[in-house]
Amino acid sequence: MAGNSFGKAFVVTTWGESHGKALGVVIDGCPPRLSLEESDIQQELNRRKPRIPSSTARREADKVEILSGTFEGKTTGTPVSLLIYNKDVDSSAYESIKDIFRPGHGDFTYLKKYGIRDWRGGGRASGRETAARVAAGAVAKRVLARERIKVTAYTVELAGIRAGLVDLDVVERNPFFVPDMAAAERMEKRVSEIKAAGDSAGGIVEVLVQGCPAGLGEPVFDKLDADLAKGLMSIGAVKAVEVGAGIEAARLLGSECNDQITPEGFLTNRAGGILAGISNGDNIVVRAAVKPISSIEIEQKTIDLDSKPRTISVKGRHDVSAIPRIVPVCEAMVRLVIVDHLLRQRVTG
Amino acid sequence: MAGNSFGKAFVVTTWGESHGKALGVVIDGCPPRLSLEESDIQQELNRRKPRIPSSTARREADKVEILSGTFEGKTTGTPVSLLIYNKDVDSSAYESIKDIFRPGHGDFTYLKKYGIRDWRGGGRASGRETAARVAAGAVAKRVLARERIKVTAYTVELAGIRAGLVDLDVVERNPFFVPDMAAAERMEKRVSEIKAAGDSAGGIVEVLVQGCPAGLGEPVFDKLDADLAKGLMSIGAVKAVEVGAGIEAARLLGSECNDQITPEGFLTNRAGGILAGISNGDNIVVRAAVKPISSIEIEQKTIDLDSKPRTISVKGRHDVSAIPRIVPVCEAMVRLVIVDHLLRQRVTG
Amino acid sequence: MAGNSFGKAFVVTTWGESHGKALGVVIDGCPPRLSLEESDIQQELNRRKPRIPSSTARREADKVEILSGTFEGKTTGTPVSLLIYNKDVDSSAYESIKDIFRPGHGDFTYLKKYGIRDWRGGGRASGRETAARVAAGAVAKRVLARERIKVTAYTVELAGIRAGLVDLDVVERNPFFVPDMAAAERMEKRVSEIKAAGDSAGGIVEVLVQGCPAGLGEPVFDKLDADLAKGLMSIGAVKAVEVGAGIEAARLLGSECNDQITPEGFLTNRAGGILAGISNGDNIVVRAAVKPISSIEIEQKTIDLDSKPRTISVKGRHDVSAIPRIVPVCEAMVRLVIVDHLLRQRVTG
Amino acid sequence: MAGNSFGKAFVVTTWGESHGKALGVVIDGCPPRLSLEESDIQQELNRRKPRIPSSTARREADKVEILSGTFEGKTTGTPVSLLIYNKDVDSSAYESIKDIFRPGHGDFTYLKKYGIRDWRGGGRASGRETAARVAAGAVAKRVLARERIKVTAYTVELAGIRAGLVDLDVVERNPFFVPDMAAAERMEKRVSEIKAAGDSAGGIVEVLVQGCPAGLGEPVFDKLDADLAKGLMSIGAVKAVEVGAGIEAARLLGSECNDQITPEGFLTNRAGGILAGISNGDNIVVRAAVKPISSIEIEQKTIDLDSKPRTISVKGRHDVSAIPRIVPVCEAMVRLVIVDHLLRQRVTG
Repeated sequence: MAGNSFGKAFVVTTWGESHGKALGVVIDGCPPRLSLEESDIQQELNRRKPRIPSSTARREADKVEILSGTFEGKTTGTPVSLLIYNKDVDSSAYESIKDIFRPGHGDFTYLKKYGIRDWRGGGRASGRETAARVAAGAVAKRVLARERIKVTAYTVELAGIRAGLVDLDVVERNPFFVPDMAAAERMEKRVSEIKAAGDSAGGIVEVLVQGCPAGLGEPVFDKLDADLAKGLMSIGAVKAVEVGAGIEAARLLGSECNDQITPEGFLTNRAGGILAGISNGDNIVVRAAVKPISSIEIEQKTIDLDSKPRTISVKGRHDVSAIPRIVPVCEAMVRLVIVDHLLRQRVTG
Repeated sequence: MAGNSFGKAFVVTTWGESHGKALGVVIDGCPPRLSLEESDIQQELNRRKPRIPSSTARREADKVEILSGTFEGKTTGTPVSLLIYNKDVDSSAYESIKDIFRPGHGDFTYLKKYGIRDWRGGGRASGRETAARVAAGAVAKRVLARERIKVTAYTVELAGIRAGLVDLDVVERNPFFVPDMAAAERMEKRVSEIKAAGDSAGGIVEVLVQGCPAGLGEPVFDKLDADLAKGLMSIGAVKAVEVGAGIEAARLLGSECNDQITPEGFLTNRAGGILAGISNGDNIVVRAAVKPISSIEIEQKTIDLDSKPRTISVKGRHDVSAIPRIVPVCEAMVRLVIVDHLLRQRVTG
Repeated sequence: MAGNSFGKAFVVTTWGESHGKALGVVIDGCPPRLSLEESDIQQELNRRKPRIPSSTARREADKVEILSGTFEGKTTGTPVSLLIYNKDVDSSAYESIKDIFRPGHGDFTYLKKYGIRDWRGGGRASGRETAARVAAGAVAKRVLARERIKVTAYTVELAGIRAGLVDLDVVERNPFFVPDMAAAERMEKRVSEIKAAGDSAGGIVEVLVQGCPAGLGEPVFDKLDADLAKGLMSIGAVKAVEVGAGIEAARLLGSECNDQITPEGFLTNRAGGILAGISNGDNIVVRAAVKPISSIEIEQKTIDLDSKPRTISVKGRHDVSAIPRIVPVCEAMVRLVIVDHLLRQRVTG
Repeated sequence: MAGNSFGKAFVVTTWGESHGKALGVVIDGCPPRLSLEESDIQQELNRRKPRIPSSTARREADKVEILSGTFEGKTTGTPVSLLIYNKDVDSSAYESIKDIFRPGHGDFTYLKKYGIRDWRGGGRASGRETAARVAAGAVAKRVLARERIKVTAYTVELAGIRAGLVDLDVVERNPFFVPDMAAAERMEKRVSEIKAAGDSAGGIVEVLVQGCPAGLGEPVFDKLDADLAKGLMSIGAVKAVEVGAGIEAARLLGSECNDQITPEGFLTNRAGGILAGISNGDNIVVRAAVKPISSIEIEQKTIDLDSKPRTISVKGRHDVSAIPRIVPVCEAMVRLVIVDHLLRQRVTG
């Protein structure tokens, strides 16, 4: 049953397969009278492109078109439809593995669910689907800019190497969106080694929301943290979501975990900017743990459509890690959640 | 804007404040012709009651009534309304702190959001609201039983002490729902020490789903893991959610993280039973990290309604940890997600 | 699949069967800081009670309780749960007809749909369910009052007799909510005759919305008229819904149907206050055609559970017409639609 | 706030303006493994094209493309995205009236609602938007065909002339989809006269559903008739919706209106195939009353953006009546409702 829409006030519906004709998104509920050009969206999509030759081989054009919802450069309040044609698609590499299930992929589960499967490039389960999310996130960014809310995602851990500091100024200056140049260099070296070994790596992305007003979030189920968790966990490869102190909160004492309050504000931010599911006006901090890319050259056991044992070794042009591509996707999903709740709070406030 | 409903096919809507007249839940979409008695629900509610004198002082009656949706002991397909009256409510203890914001609580954010706040017992933000979730989860349990799907929650970490093994047989035999009797004893001791110090503790709850068929979950947003993340994160005090290997997945190599497949099944279960957002037929494993209870005796800084500095020390009858009470709540939320997706898959399958 | 909720911003979920323990409604999305007392709701429920001895025999207490969502007489933004216990329920009259399908009733279709049926008093299909709608409508009335929007329903036709004029001042002064005292008298006489003949009658209810601002309605599917049509058609016994000129619009020429515009406003109101699905600031006018009550003394052909031919003659205490009871229900449904769209427009505006 | 989606299981989201780049629809929840080709959809779109030179002047190409959701000619269960580019768009005719509000149109209300308006060809409020509904309806038709459910719309009244009989065999043989050839001729003549006078005409469309199983519809709000009413009323120009006996039901006695039941079935069908909001297995019959086209040559009073009095006379290529174009649209909307409830009933049944 229908599950391709996200949000209740700023509703995005994505569609499209990796090797189909095109992919896109319809945004229903975008506020009217907002300046919006294709270049605003293209800019975000470009951030999703491979930043270093080593991390991918496929060249994705990802040229976005606005098909509706704007007039003379401004949104009109009607649905904004964004389209990206899939160019230079070559599905031949998938012909040979169309009868076997790649470990860690959705091949098996999609077939179990739907009784049919578009095996070309992973179909709907491909990471390519996230281009539509990034496009929608770019529109959300325009709304948030008007409210001076800023969302920034960056890599705090990759292949076991942690960033030692968070310097937002350097995030765009290295290929992995790391807020620590020295760590970024070590990560790059480690990723190269893993690539040489035919293996892949995971990492952790943190998303920071600055300038978010207090009051966003709709208890008791559509809490802000609950929707952030859903949004981030809905990204393929994400296996955990943390808010504020996250898992470490389970190990703190109450006296350590509580953020004491002073007339100048909270003394700490272990809550990650969210109390009882509602933003408290402080920075919102969430993290997504990303598993390693499932397609690896190292040979692995699997089965085919007839449940016969097979082995698989995925050659070629795959990324070693979903990072850095997933960083703008996490950023986009957080933007979608924040803008949805910003609009929802207008009803209550 | 409305956020008190959960699910799309099995829709639960909870209502009620901690110190109001009553609390309850309406379940819309409950399958017809299902045996359902008040005792089925009462039994689950009783598991939520304090198990040891040390962990609480308040005595909650929590007597549930089925007000609609059943006829001659069977569901009819119409909404099931469950009601629990709040008995022996005494709000006098909250009188003295109604003008100040308790650190770690929703006092501040509820007021910011709604411009008004029911300060009696935490109002809607109270953990008491979860009684309605447990009641709804008991109905979900009846549906799942028919499909031989079993959901079990237990404590894998409390106050920094981890369970060393998962023996489901002992979960109900100790006060903290720990699947390891020796660890349970150490936890109990540690919790007593923390209580004596006027402090509080957090922990980690794991939920195991056995017998779940492959095919549940609705990509790309209503993925099974995404909805599990939302469901668990919507519980007050939860600050992180993990699926399968969880955060550790970020540190594994692809060759370690992928679950290889054989004709007999998956060799490992790092995916936690979910691939590309769809159940793969293996056990589903999720975890929720629970922060320490915010109300502590240790004095803390805060402010009052006029933003004047104040201090607060919460005396009395509070639990030291949300564990064990939160364990049946996590179990209930996972049941609600699974039953919702079970019904949704009927549309697709 | 779940269908007992209405609205997207002001969401009402009703529950309860005619002869069950109780019935009620949960309102999620009610604006905070609104004065709301049980008497506000009781007053509307009382308008739904039989006004003349001839039109019914059952005495319904319909005493409403507010169980949540208010604090010190004001709404808090959390769900408002309203409960009405079913008193003096006697299902014995239904025992004899529990195996046969009453023509014009939902007996047959409920059984076909759910495979089980609560035959006591019509169960969920009973008109009694509308008490919950009236209760919710009373809360909506409080919100609309703050915006100076007034909704009034009245009977423009009953048993073939039309009201000749619309004098809102007399609506509450006759038993059928007719805006024309002379017509009301003729209707009363005609209804008595029909009752004596063991038959029943239908009629037409008009609902007038005064003071509605321009801009409400969400094209292209959640248009204001579309939601009004749904709301009214969802009331049992309603077989047609008209907006403005309604069916007659099909017979007018464009030059007759268009409402010409002057600086002082529209010259006519054939649109019924709605253009392209959005309110235009003029009075909104909608009508619902109500079929005659299905339970009649005149003997009719039917079948039983085994598809054997049977006859049925429903004796006793039934109303001759859904009018006047349905009048406050239509009023309530229109209020629910208007308040939902009023809140939704806050997001856009 | 978002209102461009329809349905809960078979969810369609339409987008696009009359003179924008393109228009389209995303269908989320389309069953997998269904044969679907572009020609299936094109065929339905072609029925929406002008059938006689007199009724329009604009030539719409309306060439549809399937961009996602199918693989090797079959649906995959993922979103089906359909696109129609707007060709040969010339907005110059609208330049001169962009500052004035056309009576009967959404010009005024769109501006009031959104504070901005795409005046080119009516923007989103244009009848052109319904091409997307017809495209979605063509997909619904494929699902319904599998269940042997047939939906047929036809004109029962046009410009005051009624069809005297319902002969489905002739519906496609005359320009107005009339099930009575003699009436069709008289209608054509009358429409020509009205066109010559610079005026426009309305009519009534009936939709017949054959083969619908009993049990569809989700009380108490998502009743089958309630959703049909919403679906039809959401079409621009529709001012009334009737089910079965419709408005006439208000004038019948109970003994006349009830459909008596025999072992062979219902003796009559005044209910229009729906009892208590649930299909009863009989034919479903609904009607939509369509107002005359608002754009007429006859001069009318209006105002401009500065509220100054103006007159308007719309010259040129406009249709005289929304009929026949609206007939396939009504058919499509009924199909969307039926297929949505067919899928929803899978959850319950």
